[in-house]
Amino acid sequence: MVIKAGVVGGTGYTGAELLRLLATHPQVELALVTSRSQAGSGVAEMFPNLRGHLELSFSAPDDEALRSCDVVFFATPNGVAMEMAPDLLAAGVRVIDLAADFRIRDPAEWERWYGVAHACPDLLDQAVYGLPEVNRTALREARLVACPGCYPTAVQLGFLPLLEERVVEPGRLIADVKSGVSGAGRKAAVATLLAECSESMKAYAVPGHRHLPEIRQGLDAVSEARVGLVFVPHLTPMIRGIHATLYATLKAEPAGLQELFEQRYRGEPFVDVLPPGSHPETRSVKGGNVCRIAVHRPQGGEMVVVLAVIDNLVKGAAGQAIQNMNLMYGLNESAGLEAVASLP
Amino acid sequence: MVIKAGVVGGTGYTGAELLRLLATHPQVELALVTSRSQAGSGVAEMFPNLRGHLELSFSAPDDEALRSCDVVFFATPNGVAMEMAPDLLAAGVRVIDLAADFRIRDPAEWERWYGVAHACPDLLDQAVYGLPEVNRTALREARLVACPGCYPTAVQLGFLPLLEERVVEPGRLIADVKSGVSGAGRKAAVATLLAECSESMKAYAVPGHRHLPEIRQGLDAVSEARVGLVFVPHLTPMIRGIHATLYATLKAEPAGLQELFEQRYRGEPFVDVLPPGSHPETRSVKGGNVCRIAVHRPQGGEMVVVLAVIDNLVKGAAGQAIQNMNLMYGLNESAGLEAVASLP
Amino acid sequence: MVIKAGVVGGTGYTGAELLRLLATHPQVELALVTSRSQAGSGVAEMFPNLRGHLELSFSAPDDEALRSCDVVFFATPNGVAMEMAPDLLAAGVRVIDLAADFRIRDPAEWERWYGVAHACPDLLDQAVYGLPEVNRTALREARLVACPGCYPTAVQLGFLPLLEERVVEPGRLIADVKSGVSGAGRKAAVATLLAECSESMKAYAVPGHRHLPEIRQGLDAVSEARVGLVFVPHLTPMIRGIHATLYATLKAEPAGLQELFEQRYRGEPFVDVLPPGSHPETRSVKGGNVCRIAVHRPQGGEMVVVLAVIDNLVKGAAGQAIQNMNLMYGLNESAGLEAVASLP
Amino acid sequence: MVIKAGVVGGTGYTGAELLRLLATHPQVELALVTSRSQAGSGVAEMFPNLRGHLELSFSAPDDEALRSCDVVFFATPNGVAMEMAPDLLAAGVRVIDLAADFRIRDPAEWERWYGVAHACPDLLDQAVYGLPEVNRTALREARLVACPGCYPTAVQLGFLPLLEERVVEPGRLIADVKSGVSGAGRKAAVATLLAECSESMKAYAVPGHRHLPEIRQGLDAVSEARVGLVFVPHLTPMIRGIHATLYATLKAEPAGLQELFEQRYRGEPFVDVLPPGSHPETRSVKGGNVCRIAVHRPQGGEMVVVLAVIDNLVKGAAGQAIQNMNLMYGLNESAGLEAVASLP
Repeated sequence: MVIKAGVVGGTGYTGAELLRLLATHPQVELALVTSRSQAGSGVAEMFPNLRGHLELSFSAPDDEALRSCDVVFFATPNGVAMEMAPDLLAAGVRVIDLAADFRIRDPAEWERWYGVAHACPDLLDQAVYGLPEVNRTALREARLVACPGCYPTAVQLGFLPLLEERVVEPGRLIADVKSGVSGAGRKAAVATLLAECSESMKAYAVPGHRHLPEIRQGLDAVSEARVGLVFVPHLTPMIRGIHATLYATLKAEPAGLQELFEQRYRGEPFVDVLPPGSHPETRSVKGGNVCRIAVHRPQGGEMVVVLAVIDNLVKGAAGQAIQNMNLMYGLNESAGLEAVASLP
Repeated sequence: MVIKAGVVGGTGYTGAELLRLLATHPQVELALVTSRSQAGSGVAEMFPNLRGHLELSFSAPDDEALRSCDVVFFATPNGVAMEMAPDLLAAGVRVIDLAADFRIRDPAEWERWYGVAHACPDLLDQAVYGLPEVNRTALREARLVACPGCYPTAVQLGFLPLLEERVVEPGRLIADVKSGVSGAGRKAAVATLLAECSESMKAYAVPGHRHLPEIRQGLDAVSEARVGLVFVPHLTPMIRGIHATLYATLKAEPAGLQELFEQRYRGEPFVDVLPPGSHPETRSVKGGNVCRIAVHRPQGGEMVVVLAVIDNLVKGAAGQAIQNMNLMYGLNESAGLEAVASLP
Repeated sequence: MVIKAGVVGGTGYTGAELLRLLATHPQVELALVTSRSQAGSGVAEMFPNLRGHLELSFSAPDDEALRSCDVVFFATPNGVAMEMAPDLLAAGVRVIDLAADFRIRDPAEWERWYGVAHACPDLLDQAVYGLPEVNRTALREARLVACPGCYPTAVQLGFLPLLEERVVEPGRLIADVKSGVSGAGRKAAVATLLAECSESMKAYAVPGHRHLPEIRQGLDAVSEARVGLVFVPHLTPMIRGIHATLYATLKAEPAGLQELFEQRYRGEPFVDVLPPGSHPETRSVKGGNVCRIAVHRPQGGEMVVVLAVIDNLVKGAAGQAIQNMNLMYGLNESAGLEAVASLP
Repeated sequence: MVIKAGVVGGTGYTGAELLRLLATHPQVELALVTSRSQAGSGVAEMFPNLRGHLELSFSAPDDEALRSCDVVFFATPNGVAMEMAPDLLAAGVRVIDLAADFRIRDPAEWERWYGVAHACPDLLDQAVYGLPEVNRTALREARLVACPGCYPTAVQLGFLPLLEERVVEPGRLIADVKSGVSGAGRKAAVATLLAECSESMKAYAVPGHRHLPEIRQGLDAVSEARVGLVFVPHLTPMIRGIHATLYATLKAEPAGLQELFEQRYRGEPFVDVLPPGSHPETRSVKGGNVCRIAVHRPQGGEMVVVLAVIDNLVKGAAGQAIQNMNLMYGLNESAGLEAVASLP
């Protein structure tokens, strides 16, 4: 089977990574990449790593051409996919959105955090949240997939086993998460210049970050009570990688935290539970579609500490999008995603 | 007044920073720097930034010469100062230890974490813990000063106002702290090679880090009840800087967190409470002897989040040592420490 | 003596460094910092390292206030100083321009490289090129100083001894120079995002860079024949620092290259000739106003290789500007510039 | 066809990269990885990116097991392969050495630069230098391949077209080359700690580097006269990547430099000549087995400037080794090497 894929956007970092992965996916024919601003110029002029691997030029947005695809990925700013998805879905095209448009089920909540009314709230019900470790069955039938954000992927994968098994207090969760700078996107900005954010570290958006409601929604769905979560993102001087350090309070003496995690993720192709005592490094997942997790209980106390790392552009974005596509089309879930992370 | 100073050690990063600061201190004559391994070679051969500022060569350890100093700094591995301090103190020399030998008041606790018996437990009572924001009065009379570790400086300065004013539960403290790599010292090691730890992030020592008992001791001293603390240090791909993200649970509606911090540190020359809503960057303290702090209460919930940044080599080590010396000798507390942090 | 100084611009990196140095200069009163875009906001809000050291707010451009200064520094984009300098000079204010407006003596050449006609070509004759190692005497009397660019400082200091002593062929010079990213300035741009230029290296402007005519002009002035120079700048993944690797062909067996350099720079407060066989690191000058130089003759062949490093923001910009001011006002040439470079 | 491969060494960076590439090569069965120091421990414990991709443990050196392989790669320090290769070759095993043992054809020259006598000088004649762009035919029949060093790969690919076509003076070549830190290897050393070599840049080994004779030998082979080369390597604060900036003097007006390069490398799967006016970035080849090249003639002068970038661990080491293996076994030259470089 060859799947004809289109990409809307594609000039940002999740787009670049998506193109890199699609270019060598054995069952994908990449038919077009649209960009209003770059129409006519070669994709590989903007991303020279693609020279020799992708001969396409960016094309102007073209509804007709997009409707001829099997699947269309949106690697666009928030708010674009919700304008174009209804027409594509009506034409029988499947849609995978890497932005936030279909992540939040409650349109009022979406509007509260994203500042505009949702363009197609009626589609929210059929959108499947693209975290295969939670929604694999639904994803096989999905026509519209909302890929999780990078922070939400790491935080949910780290907390899920604890909440599902009811071993921690859901009201006292803390996610202290560190992200590489590519998470801020490929747009001209002073704050993410090398001379500004290299050799430095800072928290940001402590009062409230848009990924907070998304994480809460995902955790609420598996929790016995509404979760209470403090989420503090940090900007870290590296390009790729997310390191989530998660804190939860044990409700009772657990049977075995290590076993709990190993059992939850047994058979998962892209979640790797490390041996007891491990400290995952983000570089161990750089360029790979995998989340590595370790679980600790410092000094045998009441606090569980979970360490979860992903590459924000792969398992946190483009790789996960392809994993979702593989599920939607009944392909091998790992097709096009077998690359080993690059180290050093 | 000119103070005659000696440095034992001085081939590591805290030593290098100490030499940099002493070389331009207006009231210090740096008389000797000892190093067994480097004896005879110029200090500025090892640290070329000192060329033109420091003409000394490393000398072999020489008790006589050290005894002729007014003050001797130890920038040595743990365990060296406790062997040499008794003799120096007996000779009337004041001692400032930048290592851990005199930080822990309980010799059994010291032995538990550092793995050897303490060489002079009788001196522990007269050692003053060199955190001027807590012990300024005692430091003015001190003859033996234990400079705090880098993590403990940031964590204590961040938690102190909350514990002193009894506004948070002492038993549920979390310190998620990120450190630059210079904190691991200047020793040949694979783990801190650029090719290993650049472009990566990881937690380490989650089961227990040596700075934990030191922090607990400092917080216990001001708390109404024994503190419970989870401390998770992280290695971050930058040279200098510590970013402490501190979490505490409010016991009751506080009068005003911002005011509490501003009042606690009013008049402190080296603690800077940022305006409400701020997110301090470690680069804002790079090379400067200052701790910048912001306090948040996300979504008005029960959790307080304190962000505290220092340069691990300055306010977290060498600068604080000099601040202590200034106090011990009745100098202007800021003498030799007025340099503005370097940005970018 | 206290010199009343004003700064026009001051929101870029050379401006930030200039403010850092002026804030602690013992004989300067910083009276105003103008910025059209930032007028009214605190300087330390933009550059938090200055908190506690500089209480000024940016003010709107104000000719009257500037005319009341003894000296005005321009840390502005190219083309601003030449519009404002005539009026200030007429009012008896001395002007130090950190941009390119007065560097090129030939207005036609200036227009060729900078794309606009020069606004005050009649002032070019009285402008002194602010390289103290060449123009110290003239600088003592200067009323208008053109501070050299960062690349030109390193390249000229490296080549000067060879050309002055006629030991190399002037027509075959090569300058392969590597710069930290702060040299590209503090403006929102994709190319200098951390995610773009970290973990990467590239040459740029190989067909021709604006610093080429400035370097040629300086070298021509001391050479027996017109110089031929290939200049290739590179962008390097670090914040600060310039490393010039300079290649020249010996005309005859030289008496002693090391001695030639040592003699040329004997007594210079801010040029440091390293011992034979050295390889200077840019970090050895980070934050310091110094150029460190080593000279090699690989395999005893006909090629001389000179290695010269500076901090582009200090000896390559703001520090050199202050060195010039010190000379203009008869101060100690090193006043305010004694800081030791920061290492690590 | 499935090739049974063994790796001797494998605990350094070229080894890690070789294992990463072999683990997913479609026609290779990785039979054993030997390491005296790590015998018994899992390969993926040392290199966690390999978790899930390589289940092997390091084994003690075992001649019998190695003799059962089709091909053995040496990713060892210099001097190991020459001790073990004769026995393996005698047993019919093909040998690919990633170290320097078989690169220099003249054993006296080898001894001069590597400090020990060569252990099997009689094998030097049958060793094929593994630069496919020069020796493709010979490589198809080779039983012993000497993979080029990282610097020599970039420098030779950049200079070859100019020398082969006789358009530049062979006696006046300059190679100013910048390398990422992984080129210094994965051994505990102070000089390559992040805190030492991040945020800094330096030249090293200007008097003479071991790659100089290797480069000269390769260029001499295609030049009409003995080449004169000044080679200055630099350490750059990034993990991977080599940027060669090459200077040569034109002998006469060339027909067309761009065409010359395009024609020379037409059809080469792993050399990419960029469009006129380009400046290749090392990140465009990060993780990919490709050399990207641009050629310039600044200001239409007599000097040609060639810019050539590779990933030192891929086209400069492990990728090239596999390219050689593919040729030796008649596989598709690109098998296992199709990965797109990672950007950002």
